[in-house]
Amino acid sequence: MFVRNLLGYRFKETPKDCSIASHALMTKGGYIKFMCAGSYSLFTPAKRMTAKIEKIIREEMDAIGGQEVLFPVVMPASLWEESGRYTSIGSEMARFTDRNNTKMVLGMTHEEAAVHLARDIAKSYNDFPFMIYQIQTKFRDEPRARGGLIRVREFTMKDAYSFHTSQEDLEKYYQLCYDAYVRIFKRAGAKNVVAVKSDSGMMGGKVSHEFMLLTDIGEDSIAICDECGYKANVEVAECVTEYKTDEVKQLEKVYTPNVKTIEELADSFGLNAKDTCKAVVYQENETDDYVVVFIRGDLEVNETKLRNYLGVEVHPATIVEGNGIVAGFIGGVGFNGKAKVVYDRSLKNISSLVCGANEKDYHYFGMNIERDIGKVEYVDVAKAYDGGICPVCGKPISVKRGVEVGNIFQLGVKYTKSMNMTYVDKDGTRKNPIMGCYGIGIGRLLATICEEQHDDYGPIWPITIAPWQVEICCLQAEDGEVKSISDNLYKDLNDKGIETLYDDRDIRAGAMFADADLFGIPVRAVVSHKNVDRGVIEISFRDKTFKGEANISEAASFIKDKVEELLSQYRV
Amino acid sequence: MFVRNLLGYRFKETPKDCSIASHALMTKGGYIKFMCAGSYSLFTPAKRMTAKIEKIIREEMDAIGGQEVLFPVVMPASLWEESGRYTSIGSEMARFTDRNNTKMVLGMTHEEAAVHLARDIAKSYNDFPFMIYQIQTKFRDEPRARGGLIRVREFTMKDAYSFHTSQEDLEKYYQLCYDAYVRIFKRAGAKNVVAVKSDSGMMGGKVSHEFMLLTDIGEDSIAICDECGYKANVEVAECVTEYKTDEVKQLEKVYTPNVKTIEELADSFGLNAKDTCKAVVYQENETDDYVVVFIRGDLEVNETKLRNYLGVEVHPATIVEGNGIVAGFIGGVGFNGKAKVVYDRSLKNISSLVCGANEKDYHYFGMNIERDIGKVEYVDVAKAYDGGICPVCGKPISVKRGVEVGNIFQLGVKYTKSMNMTYVDKDGTRKNPIMGCYGIGIGRLLATICEEQHDDYGPIWPITIAPWQVEICCLQAEDGEVKSISDNLYKDLNDKGIETLYDDRDIRAGAMFADADLFGIPVRAVVSHKNVDRGVIEISFRDKTFKGEANISEAASFIKDKVEELLSQYRV
Repeated sequence: MFVRNLLGYRFKETPKDCSIASHALMTKGGYIKFMCAGSYSLFTPAKRMTAKIEKIIREEMDAIGGQEVLFPVVMPASLWEESGRYTSIGSEMARFTDRNNTKMVLGMTHEEAAVHLARDIAKSYNDFPFMIYQIQTKFRDEPRARGGLIRVREFTMKDAYSFHTSQEDLEKYYQLCYDAYVRIFKRAGAKNVVAVKSDSGMMGGKVSHEFMLLTDIGEDSIAICDECGYKANVEVAECVTEYKTDEVKQLEKVYTPNVKTIEELADSFGLNAKDTCKAVVYQENETDDYVVVFIRGDLEVNETKLRNYLGVEVHPATIVEGNGIVAGFIGGVGFNGKAKVVYDRSLKNISSLVCGANEKDYHYFGMNIERDIGKVEYVDVAKAYDGGICPVCGKPISVKRGVEVGNIFQLGVKYTKSMNMTYVDKDGTRKNPIMGCYGIGIGRLLATICEEQHDDYGPIWPITIAPWQVEICCLQAEDGEVKSISDNLYKDLNDKGIETLYDDRDIRAGAMFADADLFGIPVRAVVSHKNVDRGVIEISFRDKTFKGEANISEAASFIKDKVEELLSQYRV
Repeated sequence: MFVRNLLGYRFKETPKDCSIASHALMTKGGYIKFMCAGSYSLFTPAKRMTAKIEKIIREEMDAIGGQEVLFPVVMPASLWEESGRYTSIGSEMARFTDRNNTKMVLGMTHEEAAVHLARDIAKSYNDFPFMIYQIQTKFRDEPRARGGLIRVREFTMKDAYSFHTSQEDLEKYYQLCYDAYVRIFKRAGAKNVVAVKSDSGMMGGKVSHEFMLLTDIGEDSIAICDECGYKANVEVAECVTEYKTDEVKQLEKVYTPNVKTIEELADSFGLNAKDTCKAVVYQENETDDYVVVFIRGDLEVNETKLRNYLGVEVHPATIVEGNGIVAGFIGGVGFNGKAKVVYDRSLKNISSLVCGANEKDYHYFGMNIERDIGKVEYVDVAKAYDGGICPVCGKPISVKRGVEVGNIFQLGVKYTKSMNMTYVDKDGTRKNPIMGCYGIGIGRLLATICEEQHDDYGPIWPITIAPWQVEICCLQAEDGEVKSISDNLYKDLNDKGIETLYDDRDIRAGAMFADADLFGIPVRAVVSHKNVDRGVIEISFRDKTFKGEANISEAASFIKDKVEELLSQYRV
């Protein structure tokens, strides 16, 4: 491919709306074009890259017995009514009515379609297990679309669905898929991907893992123990606390005017925040009923764990008058608010706490839960924090940020049961098959690899997914000899099956190199007057790990060897 | 791939809703699964086939300099408002409102997206020409979805867009693309594809061709002259008539009670329908204004040609009282209806006509247009018919049925002008680039090839797109020797890179062959007790053009040669 024929242009200035490197570099490098919030067109370099990622994924899915299929993007709402998700999913799901007034949805995931495809077919235990997958466009009306391809509304996803007759068989396959994912990310060149335990969210099911590419721009927080290898999304990570006190004090009501936050309380009275009991108020989404969480003053509530405990969706509350809740002064003693009350287990062993007195401008000091409130149930709804305690080995954990590039779920029978998919088992009884599902976002993986591997000048693409393997920079195309040596090299590389981008534009060397940096192609061959005079071509790696020269006549073979050397790093 | 592992099942009975062969065979053969009107999931065999068709298309598009890109399926309505198509396209376009109340559409074609992608980039004549294409899902809310993959609502399409600085350059590229299409259909194994002149419809532009696969189940009619090679969609084919009369008669009003149709008129009065003048009434879609077309009694009005002449959309009229139109008795003499009047040129040389008298139960006999009405403009709005006259060479034409599997359009500046895409030309002036666009429906091509190449038992797939190249039928898998010879053959074929489907299920030979016929795989190898005893494997072609035997030890090589032989038939 000639750069001069390639649609797209590269530029130097970072667009104002690009706050992260991958968004900026992929915009500046002519990879993506913004169409509307969360929606991009892909130029040829990006399309070539996603095709390579898709090929790797296909090979690994086929290797674990996957059968590629294709589901419709647009589905009848009736299918989603069967599973119950037509109502349980909110405005993330795009909906429309067709010309016959049939309600339709845009697929954001395809569990329903997978069950629809399989349920008439797999009727006997003999037909199991199997896995079907597709690589297809999805649309999620994501409220927080941002950062280029990292969080979009329309995206290409590989989604796979496996069906089993026993939990053991699912678990065996789940592990196969886990291992395939490890290979996929390795082959695609992602360096810092870790698998973490995660929350199953709207997918249902109990066991699930997210594959997180660790990067500071990630929206997810992951608790990691370097000691024992424990890894979990902070959303589900257990929060272990060891702080305890023994001294029991007297309960005392104290005038605390204008002191509404834990920080103000600790500052004004010289308290350790760990000795305070904070109240955090939520409302249930469906009913608007209040939920008050009491938690140690220095900790935060983990909404996912709270939601999982309550079994309903919640949101931070808007407190209105007349329900017995005195904002800023809520406490467990004498609490009369119309609300569900939850005690975080961080409070369990603290003998004397400072908390709100349910009266404006008053707090209780010396509060002892057992004595002053009574027997309460303690629940873990606190967010794990950097420097906290590993729930497995007790050593300190660190919290890192990451972007979810893949996920795997043990779904159980959520969909097969609701959608009435059954088979006849060996013993003659009718059962619902057990499902797993497995996703990878193609564009997001591409963008996060850019996030992970770039310098100030452009992406540094792994050779397995780079748009081309080699770029030839012909610095003086107006010089007949330089041009003809470049042309020959281009021809020789093509003949050897090396994917080559060829820049023979009549532009300054600086501009050509700036563009080459934005193309991020692993191997660069520079043909210039100066080099040609010395009978050589300059060869270098984009990641700067190699720079050398090859005789003109041997350059193509030399480059082929270098390409092979790089490719070998990603084999599994 | 083992048949026993393949999701999908094959059955004998033709489902009631399948009126055409491809729909029936692809349903019975486990290729497609109906989800809702015009929407199917693809099982693995069909997905493998569409992937092969896509690969052929990619190679041919790349060979003419195409650059693969990817546009969003979901686009903001604002982009379609720019081109004017948000309002000009009706309910075929699916629309919804996103969570921010932004109007969105589902792409049914991507001219707007192509201009959006290119317009900031190609700013100088130097940047042209270029062609971008994608292979992507489209949704059209088609009212007449029918026949399996032939006419669907959701489909995968290759759509390409070229941009030029002159009409000559567009025409040159248009021809390149035309030639590429010929190669694509040849390579994909479609036998009876012809390129015909067509109407540009909602796409705009003037010159366009459809690639029609000729088959009796087609919804399109194509006028074909075997003599000179003229081919045109009946929608645009010129209708040439030679019938003329010289005898001028007197105008006479005749009582014709209850005679409302041309057939009744001709029967009752012993007339030749060619001597009658029929009135066909339409209404303009936007205004409901009437349009009366006078045409020779034995001919039909071609709505497309009428629409193109009028420049507005029309539909068959509902005639209401009080507008001067007397249904069943409309004629040119003394016509006082509130309507636009169009005279088809078939009437031009007929000296004496029978026509309605604009009065209930009366017709005029002996009507001469020039004498009784005056000078009128004659327009060609008649439908070309089987046995009609070729407009090029005057020989008889035939009208055949076909399915449109591809189309190419010279769009002109319709989109670049409305969407304000300009470039600076050599002379320093700002101009709108000239566009072409080029589509192929992947699934429809697959289904029409099935329509064209099947027998009563299943599809007969061309080897270039067949889901697998070879199928091994192991007839007695319980026989250790037969099984191990089959297993070895499977391994050897895989080692040789032959795509092989392996049926080693413990089922009757008849059932296995019935399934094999539905798989439609070009080369079949039968391993049976009887053959093995004789030291041979039976090899045959699905299309029955070959049946033979190979020694067991040479079978894999023999089959590989046969595969090569078949593949060579589709090379271009």
